[in-house]
Amino acid sequence: MEPQKLDALRHSAAHMLAAAVLELYPGTKLAIGPTIENGFYYDFKFPEGVSLSENDLPKIEEEMKAIAKGGHAFVRKEVTVAEAKKFEKDQPFKLELIDEFAKESKILTLYESGPFTDLCRGGHAANTKEIPLDGLKLQKLAGAYWRGSEKKPMLTRIYGLLFANRKELAVHLNMLEEAKKRDHRKIGQDQQLFFFDDLIGKGLVLWQPKGTIIRDEIEKLAKEMEHKGGYVRVATPHLAKEETYITSGHLPYYKDSMYPAMAMDDGTYYLKAMNCPHHHVIYRHEPHSYRDLPIRIAEYGTCYRNELSGTLAGLLRVRALTMNDAHIYCRQDQIKQEFQSVLELMMKYFAIFGLEDYWFRLSKWDPQHTEKYINEPANWEIAESAIREVLQEMKVQFVEADDEAAFYGPKVDVMFKSVVGREETMSTVQLDFAAKKRFELSYTDETGQANNGVFVIHRAPLSTHERFMAFLIEHYAGIWPVWLSPIQVLLAPVSVKHADGADVLSKELDADGIRVSVDAADETVGKKVRNAAGKKIPYIVVVGDKELAGEEWMIRVRGQEDQVKMSKADFVAKVLREIKERL
Amino acid sequence: MEPQKLDALRHSAAHMLAAAVLELYPGTKLAIGPTIENGFYYDFKFPEGVSLSENDLPKIEEEMKAIAKGGHAFVRKEVTVAEAKKFEKDQPFKLELIDEFAKESKILTLYESGPFTDLCRGGHAANTKEIPLDGLKLQKLAGAYWRGSEKKPMLTRIYGLLFANRKELAVHLNMLEEAKKRDHRKIGQDQQLFFFDDLIGKGLVLWQPKGTIIRDEIEKLAKEMEHKGGYVRVATPHLAKEETYITSGHLPYYKDSMYPAMAMDDGTYYLKAMNCPHHHVIYRHEPHSYRDLPIRIAEYGTCYRNELSGTLAGLLRVRALTMNDAHIYCRQDQIKQEFQSVLELMMKYFAIFGLEDYWFRLSKWDPQHTEKYINEPANWEIAESAIREVLQEMKVQFVEADDEAAFYGPKVDVMFKSVVGREETMSTVQLDFAAKKRFELSYTDETGQANNGVFVIHRAPLSTHERFMAFLIEHYAGIWPVWLSPIQVLLAPVSVKHADGADVLSKELDADGIRVSVDAADETVGKKVRNAAGKKIPYIVVVGDKELAGEEWMIRVRGQEDQVKMSKADFVAKVLREIKERL
Repeated sequence: MEPQKLDALRHSAAHMLAAAVLELYPGTKLAIGPTIENGFYYDFKFPEGVSLSENDLPKIEEEMKAIAKGGHAFVRKEVTVAEAKKFEKDQPFKLELIDEFAKESKILTLYESGPFTDLCRGGHAANTKEIPLDGLKLQKLAGAYWRGSEKKPMLTRIYGLLFANRKELAVHLNMLEEAKKRDHRKIGQDQQLFFFDDLIGKGLVLWQPKGTIIRDEIEKLAKEMEHKGGYVRVATPHLAKEETYITSGHLPYYKDSMYPAMAMDDGTYYLKAMNCPHHHVIYRHEPHSYRDLPIRIAEYGTCYRNELSGTLAGLLRVRALTMNDAHIYCRQDQIKQEFQSVLELMMKYFAIFGLEDYWFRLSKWDPQHTEKYINEPANWEIAESAIREVLQEMKVQFVEADDEAAFYGPKVDVMFKSVVGREETMSTVQLDFAAKKRFELSYTDETGQANNGVFVIHRAPLSTHERFMAFLIEHYAGIWPVWLSPIQVLLAPVSVKHADGADVLSKELDADGIRVSVDAADETVGKKVRNAAGKKIPYIVVVGDKELAGEEWMIRVRGQEDQVKMSKADFVAKVLREIKERL
Repeated sequence: MEPQKLDALRHSAAHMLAAAVLELYPGTKLAIGPTIENGFYYDFKFPEGVSLSENDLPKIEEEMKAIAKGGHAFVRKEVTVAEAKKFEKDQPFKLELIDEFAKESKILTLYESGPFTDLCRGGHAANTKEIPLDGLKLQKLAGAYWRGSEKKPMLTRIYGLLFANRKELAVHLNMLEEAKKRDHRKIGQDQQLFFFDDLIGKGLVLWQPKGTIIRDEIEKLAKEMEHKGGYVRVATPHLAKEETYITSGHLPYYKDSMYPAMAMDDGTYYLKAMNCPHHHVIYRHEPHSYRDLPIRIAEYGTCYRNELSGTLAGLLRVRALTMNDAHIYCRQDQIKQEFQSVLELMMKYFAIFGLEDYWFRLSKWDPQHTEKYINEPANWEIAESAIREVLQEMKVQFVEADDEAAFYGPKVDVMFKSVVGREETMSTVQLDFAAKKRFELSYTDETGQANNGVFVIHRAPLSTHERFMAFLIEHYAGIWPVWLSPIQVLLAPVSVKHADGADVLSKELDADGIRVSVDAADETVGKKVRNAAGKKIPYIVVVGDKELAGEEWMIRVRGQEDQVKMSKADFVAKVLREIKERL
């Protein structure tokens, strides 16, 4: 179905929702009922004494359907402001809206559909019969302030989903269910990966030992990959003087997003808003010849954002973010090659994590809006063409988007479709022609002259630890591949008398480089195996007399019914291979 | 010589210095002239037009010696305040001192030694002849405010060294010379390890790629060693809410040392003063059984200190310190074992770095000063005895010091004598009985009850990256062992036509895990070898036709005259073994 058509149906359904509520709860005051992604909502002020719960939604949904089945045409009526006010005389929120609309127009519109008429600007189906009732579901309740202001009355918002048919609704409900199961906060807590603590403060992640293992494995991967890619690593402080961010341009424009200033005896300091200024300072600390470029400076750097406490959401919106950041300093003639190398590096990362559903977006400036961008048309032209050529030559799927660039240059965003169908931007590569001037970046060119033509590529292929961890938890549903599993092998001694033997084995596997744990609890083997399976541990080995005597082991492999028989040596080799190959 | 005797001689020498200055620069105003470690100084206000340089010091020193040789007795004279003022009528700083001394005593003392008399409380040699003139050396000039206040006049301070004889002076001068050569700031800059930048701010280290390699190697070692020791790793944010530090007791007492507060929409935040509160919060986030203890939580954590900008000194006093920190949570019956394991771990670290000249100090509380300590005599007794037993059983060299403990428990400090003869405390292990109450730390004991008897051991065997790096640079004089060398092997192609071959070799060695660099500059081999030797690179391989043809290599080994002949495979194996064994 066309998006516009579906949107009109959703709008029509919102009218039906209001009609049903008025039918069931006479005296309810109506606020607004717009469409949203996947459906619609309507905000209501219920009469004194009525307190809705989600159990009431099926009843309202039935009433909506009954009214819609009546087959009422949506009839448009033009009215004067006075007529509108008269019609809505018992609806205080509508009266407030009428006053507002009246500033723009003397004629307002009412839409009648059978028993219910609403103040509305239009955009409906022709008849309520057109609403695909088998694609309809009232979803949930929420509180919402009138006009979004906490100084105004609290209303009850009813959310509805509407799809073209039963099947599309089912697909969506299934996806929601899956997303709930894969919720990174729940899995993060179940698996003891990370938490937040009110004493420490909001939006600040405390990584527990198991989460730190995954984090460290990702850092290890990044260090390996980027070492191969010719990057060098640095370590820079988490703060800098005000002057740094005036030079970079973050101050004063970005000040609200930054943490509060700290006045020291020698000036004002801020927590890092970005890692780039620190890297620029490292670049310019030593002289560079044209032969030394490109110089690729990488760091797991932490940046700080002063998010409002109410907007924080698990790992997806935090106040301190640690990212696999790097900045590449290159000459103009190196831009294409470096951009391509970065994109190839990204694609290698994605392959390792089994991420396949992605595409690229070339985000360009808009020459009509020079106030938003550094106004160097020649540089934009050179840079955008170079990047487009790279994308074309690499034969990757990409779209172009105007007016989406960074102020300092064009960028390539990598767009993902997550396993639960959500589209998001995970990684980005940005070209920067502003830094060279702001930070006086230069190199000595072939003629021995200082050359200011240093182009900077900003890139963070693995995003931040925080966002990437949330993404990976959802992607794997907590079933980590062997190389990322906090515990790779669980040894379950059959009885207390096998515990010491299991400990010895455990030390052996640990020395081999396998993350191993022993479940020495005084419980049945069955219970230990079930526990370990619940924790999604890749391999479980029950340790009894035979295993300790050196006979072949029976390996319980995660997700497999049948056990696998294998010698200890073969098993160790298999696990080590999987770790090495990052399977 | 007895320290007290030497101090009296130094004090006497200070009088000689003032006498000599008055002789050479009549009209000079005298301030004060105390003794200090290794010598003495005197502060002067020289007459208008006199601008002293270090070139003038030999002349003053000669004059001092000439006066001292005169063999003048130090004669004590008691005078009234009025008499003292009359005597010092031309000396404004002395007059100010007299007014101050007069508050305490009606009778002041002057000391006469031949031509020079000074207001002084005494403590001299009997005669100026006793001053060991061959142990005397005027060392340097510095500016110093009168009474240390920037609102008062700037004076000229002359520093002098005085030892019992020529030999002791020579030893000290030699040590100063050695310390200067090994100065971590100089070597850090020469070797491009780290720097500070005024734009970023004071006391904030920017670790360059080569310094980051050393840092990373140290972290890798720590991760290995502490993994073997049964530690788990966590990662915690660099800040916390005010409430955290009220709970820990850092606020309000430690506030001046902390960075300024940051007011956010949900409370006040501070940069980390310590890592312990974050670890305590991680400990208590999950329930623990008595069987789970000890739990050892480790992190390379960064702490922040609001040092005054004027007191910062290279890596030795910085504003952000990253340390190999850990906290061990154990039962009382585990204290001894855990303390011993920590000391053993430390000694393993010291052996790896070739640190041999150290001893331990058991720092105890003072029951006479209960206001400085948590007042739990029984716990102090248990803890101090336990630690003493550990030190005795380990048969290590240790001293005991009263009134040197942390407020929350006794500690063991590791005292080092550096290669240049300076004593310093590098590492510390502290036992803490306060945290369990403050942070409500507990475990479930054998009876199933919550037990609050959780003892915490704080330990940081490798100190901070900053201090340890300064220490190591001095210790190795910048001649890093192979495993820490930022570049382990330098390939020096004989001519431009061997450059590609050297690059291929370089990639091979890199893939083997060796840090290798190619000097492809269009210069003579001799120059390349000299450059690399200057950079203290452990191995240099000249790459010419023979080497590329697979013949045996001639290896130039750092610090050795003769080259070593070796096949490529043997050389690679040798370097890899040295890396693995941390040689």
